[in-house]
Amino acid sequence: MSGSTYGKIFTFTTWGESHGKALGAVIDGCPAGIPICEEDIQSYLDRRKPGQSRFTTKRAEDDAVQVLSGVFEGYTTGTPISMAVFNKDQRSLDYSEIASYYRPGHADYTFDKKYGFRDYRGGGRSSGRETIGRVAAGAVAIKILNALGIEVHAYSREIGGISCDASQMDLSLCAQNPFYMPDAAAAEKVRAFAEQKMTEKDSMGGIIECMVTHMPAGIGEPVFEKLDANLSKALFSIGAVKGVEIGDGFAAARAAGSENNDSFLPPHEDPAIGGTENGRVKNLRKSTNHAGGILGGMSDGSDIIIRAAVKPTPSIAREQQTVTRDGSPVSISIKGRHDPMIVPRAVVVVESMVAVTLVDMLFAGMSARMDKICEFFGRTADTPRFLNGERI
Amino acid sequence: MSGSTYGKIFTFTTWGESHGKALGAVIDGCPAGIPICEEDIQSYLDRRKPGQSRFTTKRAEDDAVQVLSGVFEGYTTGTPISMAVFNKDQRSLDYSEIASYYRPGHADYTFDKKYGFRDYRGGGRSSGRETIGRVAAGAVAIKILNALGIEVHAYSREIGGISCDASQMDLSLCAQNPFYMPDAAAAEKVRAFAEQKMTEKDSMGGIIECMVTHMPAGIGEPVFEKLDANLSKALFSIGAVKGVEIGDGFAAARAAGSENNDSFLPPHEDPAIGGTENGRVKNLRKSTNHAGGILGGMSDGSDIIIRAAVKPTPSIAREQQTVTRDGSPVSISIKGRHDPMIVPRAVVVVESMVAVTLVDMLFAGMSARMDKICEFFGRTADTPRFLNGERI
Amino acid sequence: MSGSTYGKIFTFTTWGESHGKALGAVIDGCPAGIPICEEDIQSYLDRRKPGQSRFTTKRAEDDAVQVLSGVFEGYTTGTPISMAVFNKDQRSLDYSEIASYYRPGHADYTFDKKYGFRDYRGGGRSSGRETIGRVAAGAVAIKILNALGIEVHAYSREIGGISCDASQMDLSLCAQNPFYMPDAAAAEKVRAFAEQKMTEKDSMGGIIECMVTHMPAGIGEPVFEKLDANLSKALFSIGAVKGVEIGDGFAAARAAGSENNDSFLPPHEDPAIGGTENGRVKNLRKSTNHAGGILGGMSDGSDIIIRAAVKPTPSIAREQQTVTRDGSPVSISIKGRHDPMIVPRAVVVVESMVAVTLVDMLFAGMSARMDKICEFFGRTADTPRFLNGERI
Amino acid sequence: MSGSTYGKIFTFTTWGESHGKALGAVIDGCPAGIPICEEDIQSYLDRRKPGQSRFTTKRAEDDAVQVLSGVFEGYTTGTPISMAVFNKDQRSLDYSEIASYYRPGHADYTFDKKYGFRDYRGGGRSSGRETIGRVAAGAVAIKILNALGIEVHAYSREIGGISCDASQMDLSLCAQNPFYMPDAAAAEKVRAFAEQKMTEKDSMGGIIECMVTHMPAGIGEPVFEKLDANLSKALFSIGAVKGVEIGDGFAAARAAGSENNDSFLPPHEDPAIGGTENGRVKNLRKSTNHAGGILGGMSDGSDIIIRAAVKPTPSIAREQQTVTRDGSPVSISIKGRHDPMIVPRAVVVVESMVAVTLVDMLFAGMSARMDKICEFFGRTADTPRFLNGERI
Repeated sequence: MSGSTYGKIFTFTTWGESHGKALGAVIDGCPAGIPICEEDIQSYLDRRKPGQSRFTTKRAEDDAVQVLSGVFEGYTTGTPISMAVFNKDQRSLDYSEIASYYRPGHADYTFDKKYGFRDYRGGGRSSGRETIGRVAAGAVAIKILNALGIEVHAYSREIGGISCDASQMDLSLCAQNPFYMPDAAAAEKVRAFAEQKMTEKDSMGGIIECMVTHMPAGIGEPVFEKLDANLSKALFSIGAVKGVEIGDGFAAARAAGSENNDSFLPPHEDPAIGGTENGRVKNLRKSTNHAGGILGGMSDGSDIIIRAAVKPTPSIAREQQTVTRDGSPVSISIKGRHDPMIVPRAVVVVESMVAVTLVDMLFAGMSARMDKICEFFGRTADTPRFLNGERI
Repeated sequence: MSGSTYGKIFTFTTWGESHGKALGAVIDGCPAGIPICEEDIQSYLDRRKPGQSRFTTKRAEDDAVQVLSGVFEGYTTGTPISMAVFNKDQRSLDYSEIASYYRPGHADYTFDKKYGFRDYRGGGRSSGRETIGRVAAGAVAIKILNALGIEVHAYSREIGGISCDASQMDLSLCAQNPFYMPDAAAAEKVRAFAEQKMTEKDSMGGIIECMVTHMPAGIGEPVFEKLDANLSKALFSIGAVKGVEIGDGFAAARAAGSENNDSFLPPHEDPAIGGTENGRVKNLRKSTNHAGGILGGMSDGSDIIIRAAVKPTPSIAREQQTVTRDGSPVSISIKGRHDPMIVPRAVVVVESMVAVTLVDMLFAGMSARMDKICEFFGRTADTPRFLNGERI
Repeated sequence: MSGSTYGKIFTFTTWGESHGKALGAVIDGCPAGIPICEEDIQSYLDRRKPGQSRFTTKRAEDDAVQVLSGVFEGYTTGTPISMAVFNKDQRSLDYSEIASYYRPGHADYTFDKKYGFRDYRGGGRSSGRETIGRVAAGAVAIKILNALGIEVHAYSREIGGISCDASQMDLSLCAQNPFYMPDAAAAEKVRAFAEQKMTEKDSMGGIIECMVTHMPAGIGEPVFEKLDANLSKALFSIGAVKGVEIGDGFAAARAAGSENNDSFLPPHEDPAIGGTENGRVKNLRKSTNHAGGILGGMSDGSDIIIRAAVKPTPSIAREQQTVTRDGSPVSISIKGRHDPMIVPRAVVVVESMVAVTLVDMLFAGMSARMDKICEFFGRTADTPRFLNGERI
Repeated sequence: MSGSTYGKIFTFTTWGESHGKALGAVIDGCPAGIPICEEDIQSYLDRRKPGQSRFTTKRAEDDAVQVLSGVFEGYTTGTPISMAVFNKDQRSLDYSEIASYYRPGHADYTFDKKYGFRDYRGGGRSSGRETIGRVAAGAVAIKILNALGIEVHAYSREIGGISCDASQMDLSLCAQNPFYMPDAAAAEKVRAFAEQKMTEKDSMGGIIECMVTHMPAGIGEPVFEKLDANLSKALFSIGAVKGVEIGDGFAAARAAGSENNDSFLPPHEDPAIGGTENGRVKNLRKSTNHAGGILGGMSDGSDIIIRAAVKPTPSIAREQQTVTRDGSPVSISIKGRHDPMIVPRAVVVVESMVAVTLVDMLFAGMSARMDKICEFFGRTADTPRFLNGERI
């Protein structure tokens, strides 16, 4: 069971530790013919790199990516794309004390139980720096989605209990505040709250929402490989995520069927986006979207709406009680360069994980219908055949 | 991408449609030597079979399981276990009208988009009857967990917005009410509420909680194959699940780090469950369990607590608006034998999916440490060797 | 690691033991829309069923297949196809003695070492009857290939050292002799040889060849998932196969590069099968086919030629030396209804395993190129988009 | 379908092209606690690097490996091991002409058909340099095998039709001739033959044999994941391999059952390697090893013997006929630095692929028996349990 590889068709493997030589990812299963360059990937990495505001860690890394394989003359070749980021600001000395005890809320104890020992420098493999590889792979996946007209946008929906007002949300505002929130007023409240929490040497969590538009209908598999099941796994695989919901999510559990069902509407009249084909509707619309764009595990053509609950950063400067590896109680205060909240930097990680999952499932769905397979290969049983040099 | 197969090491494939000849599952990767008989599996299937109370569908099925392979002289052989349940009460005529339109909240439209047509009888493959195979596989998985001293218990935590009082919960009460709720007072309220909703030809959802006790620490993989990520996918793969949370879940997003972190406590003095070994703690305890038993994607030895939000049954007798396959608007009222709530019958499905996931990840974790591998094989580089008939 | 499931996209799981209640297979990942009925599958099973001639086992089984799911109104639905064959002539008593010792050339000892015990009735899971599931799945795969104009034909190339004369081979002759040989004269020699070996209470092996015509070029993956690598695994997964070669195979190891290279020829003039497209050749021809239709792990458009070496049946009535489970020497003579040669019945198994592998790799190759993916989904980044009810 | 990733539990992904920036591999699923350093890996890479003799390519590469992650304080951590080799002697100009035509015996045409274009520099991804990643991963796998007392040794069994004399083979001789042959006399004959072929501007193939000693019995899965099936795929995934056989291989197809069956012998008396346990034999011996150490897809405890047929290098300086991408005939003579034989350099690649396969299947086999699983986890259903702070 290969725990650092994601996906079945469009796959990638991340590698690297917080304070090792480098981190990176290898994508395998990327189609040939996609124009891509290091800048394309760098722009996504820049969204997660440290030091973007006073609300994130001060570790100094430029996280410059190198593409080592799989791209030739500006296009992907269909072979593995290896991408690496070399660490610069490791400062291992900061972390030496941590080796002796188990930090609350961290994976120190579970790593020791699983592997017998651990790379204690900055969390080693369980560091948030592991997501560098995810974002690099996500940048490529988003290229693929965009080529298909699909958009993926994530943003901070709520931080420290302060939520965006749905009626005020404008995605273009995200880049204008350090919290990646689409509601300027909410962002201001978060700023004040964060200042206070930082003074208290404490940390905050929040909720990241991701919206996918223009997804074709019928993507996802109806039983175990449901699109929402895979999206949920994708988001839960991000450290600190403690909950995931689609559409109305937990609120749906409290609604009546008559409230929660989304009525189907007749198709749009514009044949480019609606109409019928061979007497069947091409793209249905729904009056509401409580389902969040997925029915029976398959996309229904509406916007996909998914949310992840992110816990507060466990590294806090406040005094905490814990034990050492030999079981002795100890009082600790975590030093170092930690994010008081990871939500803003995790937004692009959510976007990346959603994107790689969508690409994987789009590709997986290509062999669902025999008529489309024949069309794809330009083949029918009637295609002229040629055997031993003779047409038969 | 094999959408009806679950797991990587302990795997199973479910098959069958609501109104086909039969449904079932094939488990591959079950260890040899587990005592098992049809009754073991039947007792789990009985918990999900229809007609157990007036709050569930009246379809008459005894869901009697046959074990067709993989068990010999009362023990699993290590080879595939094929299990089948033949359908009895198919009544396909009930469903003929459904073929022409798309039911709101169902997978009718998405099935058509994916496959070009669908088995419209009772939902075909997207029917809840598909879960027969899951529960059959889950029954075997629970046998394995119990042999390792691990218990898995699911129950209805909330129905129609009526929640159990945590301080009143007693798991032994679940079997005493038709809702599988561990709080008798809450169950009474649900009964009244359900009666009302049924009169209104409407339906209800709810929240199922699952608790795992005595899980060894260190199970799960630290990156994409996190234990919580896999549990989340497992639950989201159940039709009608719209949200999943671990431990404090969405509430953690609103807590401060100092509140959400669970302090580690010195180990219990009883060497059977605590103490140290070679100077290292064997099993740590925590003062609280906000994390829900999982840290960094690996079990921490505390109880695992996970919840799934289940939407209200989409099949309701009330009039609804939708469209036909050719896009014409139509007003429908769904007839047939539907559950006003699926939560009580889904409890054992949740339990099953959690169990198969735990078994798969326990097995996946067996090759994490070289010292334990050598011990397992009874081998070291110093083991006497024997080549071409001679000891070397 | 799921040892009874084959394939990654078009997958199937076989189950059942020689003397259990039933055997079968579940296909998952079969496209929707393929016309299929039980007779289609039965015709392939009939080619492997026992008792077809005096040169095969006398066990009386009609091997009648039931399709339990995945087919609706005569077409595959895209959901799992479950197929079962119930055993009739089990006669377990024949095999009771075998439980105590390890038959030479059989899996008795290795099963015991792996699982701690075994189903000793007729070989249990390692029986040739396991291939029933493979042939049932193969029948479906061949349907898919034929719909794409691809043909797969296997035959006995050599039995007991008596080989077909390549210049005399005519595939239409195979059904006219009990050995499934395409050379009548060779078949006559085999008949005489087999009679003699049966008198001697001994058994024979042979070589099965499989030819695939009209395969599109470029199928297979260039590194680990080479088409020939997967075909080789497919054939080696059949019990009794001890060698596999492609094209010239082992003879290529003795040839010079100048002899072994196949020259490319200009494309055929008929645009249906040759010519150029956008200035590039559509289908190249080669002057020879030493490579057996595969270059660099990908099909080159020539016929694929692959051979499997099948060992002589290990069950022989002659006296043999072996040991019991407790290590005591014992002299045995295997009774029961065994095939003096399995080659003729294994021909359809080879054909099936080649077919399922080709289908799996054809499907896997559908996401290799971005231009073809966009075409498949009818999407470009310029496709009109529709967001929140408004065209954007 | 992830074509550049190998394995299911112990997995690795190779990346890089012949003339790209770098090549490498990422291992995922390596157990923690294995002492490893760059020198360990380098010593294997040195066995495949170019320029070791006048019989191999003159490309100047030192193939120095860097370990970028997964090793901490000299031990593997259980997290991904990323290894990279930067190219030095790329000389892309040598290859510019090749872009226009399809070299016979190469993957040029099939790459173009699959991906629409290709990295034409030195074969790009289909270059033998891809095997750098395999050997790096193999070096780690061999460390694991050795820790379990298992040895893997490959050597040139035959080159250009000149075969080692089985009675003269001594593995310690391999390093003393440039052909990695264990028979000095045969190596001398090969030297003369190779000189002649090089004068003729032609190339040679051969047969590589690999022997595994001290393998535990019962490893491998009995149906599709047979040990021999996986070994065969492993070897066929190496470019230029056209055939694989186990034990007597193709010769077994011509033998009688009475000749081919290996009799079991009573166990060795030394309890360390033989004897009985709980009344069952621990390790059986066989009188012969026609089976090559595998019965029914599982190791039988004898030496595993497997052979791969390697075709002659397709790059030859002799004039050859082929066509350009637009279908025009052209006469070519391949320049550049090519190996007149790849067999000697491929020996360590065979050894590596066998090793990674064995490790993967050893790990996969750890969950085959419930008794051993309970033992592994130190758990039984009777283990004292601790719930909500109380022992239960």
